[in-house]
Amino acid sequence: MAGMLQSEMVREVLEGRVRSIARMMSRAETGKAEARGQMAELYRHTGRAHVVGLTGVPGSGKSTMVQVLAKTYRGSGRKVGIVAIDPSSPFSGGAILGDRVRMSDLTSDPGVFIRSMATRGALGGLARASLDAVDILDAAGFDVVVVETVGVGQDEVDVVQVAQTVVVVSAPGLGDDIQAIKAGILEIADIHVVSKCDRSDANKTLTDLRGMMALGVRAGDPAAWKVPVMGTSAESGEGIEELVATIDSHRAHLDETGAIEARRRRLLEMRILKIAEDIVRSRFVGRRDGEMSGLVDRVMTRDLDPYSAAVDLLSAINRD
Amino acid sequence: MAGMLQSEMVREVLEGRVRSIARMMSRAETGKAEARGQMAELYRHTGRAHVVGLTGVPGSGKSTMVQVLAKTYRGSGRKVGIVAIDPSSPFSGGAILGDRVRMSDLTSDPGVFIRSMATRGALGGLARASLDAVDILDAAGFDVVVVETVGVGQDEVDVVQVAQTVVVVSAPGLGDDIQAIKAGILEIADIHVVSKCDRSDANKTLTDLRGMMALGVRAGDPAAWKVPVMGTSAESGEGIEELVATIDSHRAHLDETGAIEARRRRLLEMRILKIAEDIVRSRFVGRRDGEMSGLVDRVMTRDLDPYSAAVDLLSAINRD
Repeated sequence: MAGMLQSEMVREVLEGRVRSIARMMSRAETGKAEARGQMAELYRHTGRAHVVGLTGVPGSGKSTMVQVLAKTYRGSGRKVGIVAIDPSSPFSGGAILGDRVRMSDLTSDPGVFIRSMATRGALGGLARASLDAVDILDAAGFDVVVVETVGVGQDEVDVVQVAQTVVVVSAPGLGDDIQAIKAGILEIADIHVVSKCDRSDANKTLTDLRGMMALGVRAGDPAAWKVPVMGTSAESGEGIEELVATIDSHRAHLDETGAIEARRRRLLEMRILKIAEDIVRSRFVGRRDGEMSGLVDRVMTRDLDPYSAAVDLLSAINRD
Repeated sequence: MAGMLQSEMVREVLEGRVRSIARMMSRAETGKAEARGQMAELYRHTGRAHVVGLTGVPGSGKSTMVQVLAKTYRGSGRKVGIVAIDPSSPFSGGAILGDRVRMSDLTSDPGVFIRSMATRGALGGLARASLDAVDILDAAGFDVVVVETVGVGQDEVDVVQVAQTVVVVSAPGLGDDIQAIKAGILEIADIHVVSKCDRSDANKTLTDLRGMMALGVRAGDPAAWKVPVMGTSAESGEGIEELVATIDSHRAHLDETGAIEARRRRLLEMRILKIAEDIVRSRFVGRRDGEMSGLVDRVMTRDLDPYSAAVDLLSAINRD
């Protein structure tokens, strides 16, 4: 299959063939020139999927939420792609299974595609590869693409905050350290969800979030989206249908107000930026040859400062 | 003070003046040309500090560990700089206090400097600014610079893993989601610390980690550093002196084997890379003018694909 024609692979992805989608994602992760050509080809077929970002701190129940959401979407006949950005080994490059394993009852359904991305450590490219996976699923005809990330880490927040609809999941009763992290992602929400609402302390979390949202509402703009705070329980299924309906309403709101164009634009900006960063990183990190290595040598001996070296690095990339 | 001469500010930083150090860090965060010049000047005076990376998942007790470590260093007369990378609002740009407040008993000591870095969201530059802060503290004569990050997020892991000595803090009895994250940083440790060893379930965590480390030991290399697994309790002070001694041993080991040069090199590589990424990001994100904006327009209309746009972006930066 290694010799599969580029256009044949792209055609199979466009037909929604599961094995080709998986293979295309793996190729895209390598960031090689061939993959770039294919991604450029696929890009022309994107733009139909609703890209939903879902984030929450560790322990918020976001992975269970994604699973339940996917089942609900399937119930209404929609195809769902999931790109889960997993914190994982910077050395092994492999994703931790963990949460993903629990999704196994979804994996036999061809209308659901789950991709778990590893944090790629020094090799970088996590954000770029994740956004590639979103494009592949979009081009392959998935109606909804859910990007799930833990709500910490610049790359992770970068990716989720440029989704068309951003859902932030909070759980009742998390510790101090966790709450501090949570504060960093609350502001990017289009929809707030409190999970585990079967628990007795859920009401406090709902009230706190609603209070916070009330503070942030700007008066006098009836066209503005009012960020809802919704209670759910994956256990009982409470609030899940309502959540799907609200995600759909948000998308409808974006379409009606024309705000969808701004969202598409910010996603594309991030996409271009992450590809550019990835090009810089891949031409530099771990290179022991010639010009790149020489740059580091000169900084080591303090013949050059890191800022001047960075400018030289960018020039060197363009001369390549 | 805004009109302070560049060289005067640099001189004051080199003299270790607290207000100038703080001001220099704020200037460096802006990434403006003037700050770059000053950073380049300061860089010539770096290279003496021992850069210690300290990471752990939320709830691991790493912030308390940093505090206790700092006090112990002070007890032996060493000056300690702390760069804490806080997950925080991508919009406000301000750091959450939280943990930092608890450090207040250290803040009146001029031999301790604590800088809390905000996650900078779409503006980027977190890793670059954090590494700038390390250089500033190094140049200002701090003997040890501790970089504290939560162990998730590519930028955060990038920064901590290039420290000369990497300490990974684990706490007994954390949940599943947290454990999955932890797996991603275990492999970067030069020293493992189990916190909260006054707790009854600490022994299991110590045993698990020691088992994992035993699996990873390569036979036949007596010169290799054997990663220790140490128990500590911030409450009782147990193991803290030993931890400081072990961090010193690791540094001595790096010096004796010459491995310190490779560590310095990988820190510099990351530093140059993050500056280059920051240049790319700052010339592109949110720019509504001319060439950059036109690039996004063409990708929006699918006249151009994101990969070609990224290459064009890098060329445009060099023509600037």
